[in-house]
Parts: sequence; structure tokens; C-alpha cells
Amino acid sequence: MKNPSILISNDDGIYSDGIYALWEAMSEIGKTTIVAPNTEKSAVGHAITLSDPIRIQKVKRANGFKGFSVHGTPADSVKIAVKAIMDSRPDLIISGINSGANVGQSLLYSGTISAATEGTFLGIPSIAISLDAYKKCDFSGAKLAAIKIVKAVLQNGLSEGTLLNVNVPNIKEPDYRGYKITKQGAIYFKDHFEKREDPHGRQYYWMTGVIENPDTDIQWDGYALKEGYVSITPLHLKMTNIDIMDELSGWDLN
Amino acid sequence: MKNPSILISNDDGIYSDGIYALWEAMSEIGKTTIVAPNTEKSAVGHAITLSDPIRIQKVKRANGFKGFSVHGTPADSVKIAVKAIMDSRPDLIISGINSGANVGQSLLYSGTISAATEGTFLGIPSIAISLDAYKKCDFSGAKLAAIKIVKAVLQNGLSEGTLLNVNVPNIKEPDYRGYKITKQGAIYFKDHFEKREDPHGRQYYWMTGVIENPDTDIQWDGYALKEGYVSITPLHLKMTNIDIMDELSGWDLN
Repeated sequence: MKNPSILISNDDGIYSDGIYALWEAMSEIGKTTIVAPNTEKSAVGHAITLSDPIRIQKVKRANGFKGFSVHGTPADSVKIAVKAIMDSRPDLIISGINSGANVGQSLLYSGTISAATEGTFLGIPSIAISLDAYKKCDFSGAKLAAIKIVKAVLQNGLSEGTLLNVNVPNIKEPDYRGYKITKQGAIYFKDHFEKREDPHGRQYYWMTGVIENPDTDIQWDGYALKEGYVSITPLHLKMTNIDIMDELSGWDLN
Repeated sequence: MKNPSILISNDDGIYSDGIYALWEAMSEIGKTTIVAPNTEKSAVGHAITLSDPIRIQKVKRANGFKGFSVHGTPADSVKIAVKAIMDSRPDLIISGINSGANVGQSLLYSGTISAATEGTFLGIPSIAISLDAYKKCDFSGAKLAAIKIVKAVLQNGLSEGTLLNVNVPNIKEPDYRGYKITKQGAIYFKDHFEKREDPHGRQYYWMTGVIENPDTDIQWDGYALKEGYVSITPLHLKMTNIDIMDELSGWDLN
């Protein structure tokens, strides 16, 4: 595809380092449009804004980075980009580069994923890409991985209703152990609530916790990532557990 | 199970009619604990609150309704209920009764579903229940349906990692055509953005749209519901599209 139209969004906000790196990478492939939340919107899940008006603003950053900030969620951003900002539908949507992996259970909470999900709903090939680091992020490898994977998607297409969830280790690209097609694993955030008292004597809680990873081999997203692979997981949004439908039909309800 | 412990949550907020109706129904089965958002949190998806403190308050309503309101999302409410409020884990979690169906694509946006999803993550049998009406809601049938389905789950158990998504037509119970085990359908909200100008000359948008239902028979959630069935869809949270893993492995990435 010559000069494909690529929509870039994220959940860390339009001023994040990750979206800037992704813009640099995608500019090597095609024509970019950037539409992303005005501020960080991590862990918003697939929220959309129905009860409030949504505002957009033009944003400029260094070296010709131009985009639109949305006073809303990642899903809002992709919707409004395709339905109201862009003149024609993009050829591909990519969300990221997120600071922090999106693997296992965290997919359900992830704004990065939700932007890609929204693209998939709209029938546009969509990718979420995340770097396995919150601090000292080195996006250089992730940029190369993004270019490689986007080119592959543009060449091969992507099965309808499927998005790719890409996670990249925070190491230099020559040190990657390779690209691995993986499954969503069982890795999860074991949370607890820390109880505190404010200066006025009122109680409040902070959610905190630790990562738990029950997975034991590289067929799983989080495990492959920790082993130094770029993990690529095809996700779909069909949530029906077909396997237990017969069992449920046997329940005495009617 | 004798006097089971039932945790009730929702996304319409602790002061909604739907959660009150659900409390009345569940009080006939067991010991209830109510923990729900302080205000309406529709379409929040699976959002959780990591960056802000979370407060809880005791709430009383008519006829002995006692609960805890959470300054957070439905997922927060279930997490904090199980991890910080309740002395022991509940035997079952039920979220609702939502005003408005949760079928097809809307499952991804639904706070009602996310509360049940969180219960499933915690390893507790969980149910989401929604009524197919926003106005003139008659919860009488939904209450009977909730009792029937909760009893069946307590008796039969629920396969690990699976939650039930129940949708009830807004008609009297004797008029139900029956209970139908269904699959998540393709019904979706075809949105567009209405552009307006505020009194200060600044543009803003409202998200609006219409429901589109491509499904054509009662094996699908939204279709069965419109036909007068109580729709019960077993959902799991495994999002991997296994079918295309081989195809992706053939891509020239390594």
C-alpha cells in the first residue's frame, strides 16, 4: 500500500513520550493523523463519554508533530477521529506506545487496548503496542517493532474482528529473542486496599498490589515478554463461552 | 446452600431503582451486602481507580436497605467490597438491575458487566442483570428472573472464569416466552458526533447514534430479548483469537 493513512492514538495522552515515538515511527510508513486524550487515561477500560460534551483542540509538538487532543477517553478519541475529524477512513489504527505492558488480565482495564478495540469495531485493522517499562523507557526497539508489524498488517491484512496486541521488551532491538505469536495469559494484578486517614479524620483507601504470573512458558503473552520476545497476541471480542452453553441449557429454568 | 452471602453492585449507582429492586429480590435468598458507586457510572467500561484515593460511605434507604457507596467505578466497588469491606468472600456476586439492555458490542462498554467481570476475576460466581428499558422500568419480572437464576447458579455452580450476562424484557413475568441460553450478538450502537457551538463560540461535540442489529434469530442475545425471552449468555474473558495464530506465525517477522 502506497502512503497508507495511519491513525495514531493512545491512553497516556497526546503529550506522552510514547505517542511521540510512535508518530516518528509511523511517519516512515505513511500519512499520520494523531488523535489522543488530552491527559493520561490509564486503566479507564473501554469507557466512552455519553453524558458530557466532548471538546477537541489542535496540538503541536516538536519537529512537526501535529494532532488533536480529545477531552475524553481513548475510545472516544478513535471514534471522533474516524467519525468527525478525518476526511476519510484510515487504513490502519495503532494505539501506543504505552508505558507499561498490557498482558493477561490487564487487557480488560487497558485504555491502550480499548482504542484498538474501537478501531476493530469500526472495521479498521488495529494494533495496540506497549513497552514493558514505566520508567527509563527506551522506545527505539518498539519503534522498529511497530514499523515491522504495521508493514506486515498492511501487506497481509487482518482477519475481521481481530486486533493485534503487541508488547515489546524494554531492551535494544538487536537483543530481542524474536517475535512470538502468543495467547493472552493469566498474569494478573493481585490488588489490595491500603486504608488511610486524611488530615480531617476521614478514612480513604488506595488501591495497590503486586503482579502475579501463574504462566510457565512462552506461549503466553507476559511470559514471552519477560523472556525477551516481542509478544503479538491476536485478540477478538467474542466473549461467549460456547463450551458451557449445553450445560446451561440443562438447567431447570423454563 | 443455606443463607448464602450475596454481594450486590451495579453501575447506575447505589440510589438507583434497579439496585433497590435487586436487593429486595436477593433478600429472599440470602444475606445481602450492597457496595456500589455513589453516582451513575454507565459506559465506564472496566475502569479502575489507581491515581486517586477511594472513599466509601454508609448509605441507608427505605425498608432496611443498607449499603456502602464507593467514590469510584463498578469494578472498584466489587474489588473494595471483597478485599476491604466484607469479612469473608461472598458466595455470589450480582450486578444490576441495569436500566437498559447489555447485549452485543455494548458488553465492552458496560459498567454492569465490569462489576461481574471483577467478581469472576476474584473467582466468585458472578452475574450481570439488565432490564430492556430506560424509562417506565418494571422490575417485577426481572426480580423473579434474578431469583430463579441465582438459585440455579448456587445449586449448579458456574464454570471457572465464566460469568452470566442476563437480559430481561420489560414485560410482566407471565408474559415471558421463556429462558434462552444465547450468544453475544453483533448488535451495536452506530454512533456519530453532533457538532455544536457553545455561547462563547467554542465548538464541542455530543456523541449520539442509533442501535443497529444485524442478528436474525434468537440464538443471539439482543434478538432473543426483543422476542420476549430472558437471555442468558455465558461469557468468558479469554480474548485470544486462536483461529488465526497459525496464519500470523507465517508472517515474515523474525
